[in-house]
Amino acid sequence: MTAAGEAAGTRRWRVGIAGLGLIGGSAARRLAGAGHEVTGWDPDGPTRSQASDAGVAIADSVAGLCRAEPDVLILAVPLRALTETVAEVSRHLTGSTVVTDVASVKTPVLDLVRAAGLSGRFIGGHPMAGTELSGFAASTAELLDDATWALTLDEDSGRDAFWTVAELVCGPLRGAVTPVRAAAHDEAVALVSHVPHVLGTELLALVARSELRGLALGLAAGSFRGATRVAGTDPRRTEAMVAGNATRVARVLRELSADLATLSAELERGAAVSGFFDAAASLRGPAPQRRPLGVTVGSGADWARELTGLGERGALFTAADRASGRLDGLL
Amino acid sequence: MTAAGEAAGTRRWRVGIAGLGLIGGSAARRLAGAGHEVTGWDPDGPTRSQASDAGVAIADSVAGLCRAEPDVLILAVPLRALTETVAEVSRHLTGSTVVTDVASVKTPVLDLVRAAGLSGRFIGGHPMAGTELSGFAASTAELLDDATWALTLDEDSGRDAFWTVAELVCGPLRGAVTPVRAAAHDEAVALVSHVPHVLGTELLALVARSELRGLALGLAAGSFRGATRVAGTDPRRTEAMVAGNATRVARVLRELSADLATLSAELERGAAVSGFFDAAASLRGPAPQRRPLGVTVGSGADWARELTGLGERGALFTAADRASGRLDGLL
Repeated sequence: MTAAGEAAGTRRWRVGIAGLGLIGGSAARRLAGAGHEVTGWDPDGPTRSQASDAGVAIADSVAGLCRAEPDVLILAVPLRALTETVAEVSRHLTGSTVVTDVASVKTPVLDLVRAAGLSGRFIGGHPMAGTELSGFAASTAELLDDATWALTLDEDSGRDAFWTVAELVCGPLRGAVTPVRAAAHDEAVALVSHVPHVLGTELLALVARSELRGLALGLAAGSFRGATRVAGTDPRRTEAMVAGNATRVARVLRELSADLATLSAELERGAAVSGFFDAAASLRGPAPQRRPLGVTVGSGADWARELTGLGERGALFTAADRASGRLDGLL
Repeated sequence: MTAAGEAAGTRRWRVGIAGLGLIGGSAARRLAGAGHEVTGWDPDGPTRSQASDAGVAIADSVAGLCRAEPDVLILAVPLRALTETVAEVSRHLTGSTVVTDVASVKTPVLDLVRAAGLSGRFIGGHPMAGTELSGFAASTAELLDDATWALTLDEDSGRDAFWTVAELVCGPLRGAVTPVRAAAHDEAVALVSHVPHVLGTELLALVARSELRGLALGLAAGSFRGATRVAGTDPRRTEAMVAGNATRVARVLRELSADLATLSAELERGAAVSGFFDAAASLRGPAPQRRPLGVTVGSGADWARELTGLGERGALFTAADRASGRLDGLL
């Protein structure tokens, strides 16, 4: 492969994918369909067969994925299987393979990766995409298109590893990148993903134990369907996600619980509650217009902090070019 | 109009509609478009002009709507305007006009109607349809198609009034009917509409006051968008809905607040939380298959209790025929 070929976007990526469920399977389909060299593995035999039928080469083990020395190894196993998978990877990885993952919480993964001595070649990833379904059968080549990927940068993150994953995401995976510290990611997704999952589950549980359950489901409005759709997800997956971010989710739930207790008391005594309904006023209406943002990644020690500073204000990069050091997108 | 004409579904309804917003406007468009005689009124001048342009005859006041002695008068003004509108109607209504409404809480409306001496000719209505938009400009002829209408039946509800509204809903309004006591309705919608609206508002407020607000919005997943879509509604409308059902909403919020405080404490001490995520298991997966249900409305004093007994188990009637006394649908 030549530098000119890379510049023209014709680079043929070599990618290993451990775990061929909804996300891993969708990445495999997208990359294999575009002619990249994808090798996958999954602990489940029928999943391996389905992936093989869909044109994905299958390795015999995580060790096999590592031995092939791909450019990038994507860990796409469920969160609860990552401890074992990271240990396996640390035993077998050689060469210059960069490692990333797709888990919905990032600090526990970073802890595992650090303990395994892999943090210099690791960039945590979390594509904001998915459905209430799971498994390779639910994966599609399109699922990850235009997805925002949070990519984690912390003090021990390697610059080469970042460029590799950013180019893979913005290039053949057709996504966009928000650079973020692992802790900030987990704080933000507690608010916009984990707590909403908890609330959807709780709403379903309240209806399930109501005497008027049949009527309530019959009258269920869009607000209920919107809030509980995610509660259709495998409860073990939701539990692992919430438990993996327990401290931050607990903090938000405590605040939320207190706010609702206050509102409940105000409603009981007939007090004015307009303040509650106005509190979110600044987020109503159309989203503010984003502006183009182009940055050249600095050569100083602060390069990662500069990028996460932008990411934590909401920057989204849709193009990454290691050769020029440029990231382009919107803020 | 002949009995044969009615039986053939060619009855030309005379309908008055007070309030030409999202719901009243959509009903007016559907009925006028099908050749029924629709007269509307709205306190807002531009709304009256838009409705007139869309082919709806406009009365000069609520009194004018009443004086025309329509078959049905639909009160579709906002909840907070109903006190004044019901008083106006009670002053001017003559003939055999049946009155219904479309408010999202039913016991306060029933209280108003009883105080005005109108309960024998009144059937409360609540179409489970809507969008986060409001106003005549957002109304469409299709909005109410296939909507489930909760119709309230209490001890003082008139049988003629019920048949009239049920035939209007199942006929030209193209909806379906769930008969329900006003109190049971309010209990059920606290669970499946009012509390989800509160939670959507609270989620937006938590993000609005977070330091990581830009990042959180950038990473907002489908779970957040699903849960907060309804928080885009006019906050005054949501507030009126919640305040109008204050006691019941407060009770659900207290239970929810306690459940979340417990979960928060469990997460903080690293306890098992699988019970929380399994609590809604019975409502996961595909909805149970419904079976056809046909009933002949009894002639005894219990006719209303028999119907609400079915409605409160989830019965939905898609066809109403006063002549034969038959309601047909699904349970």
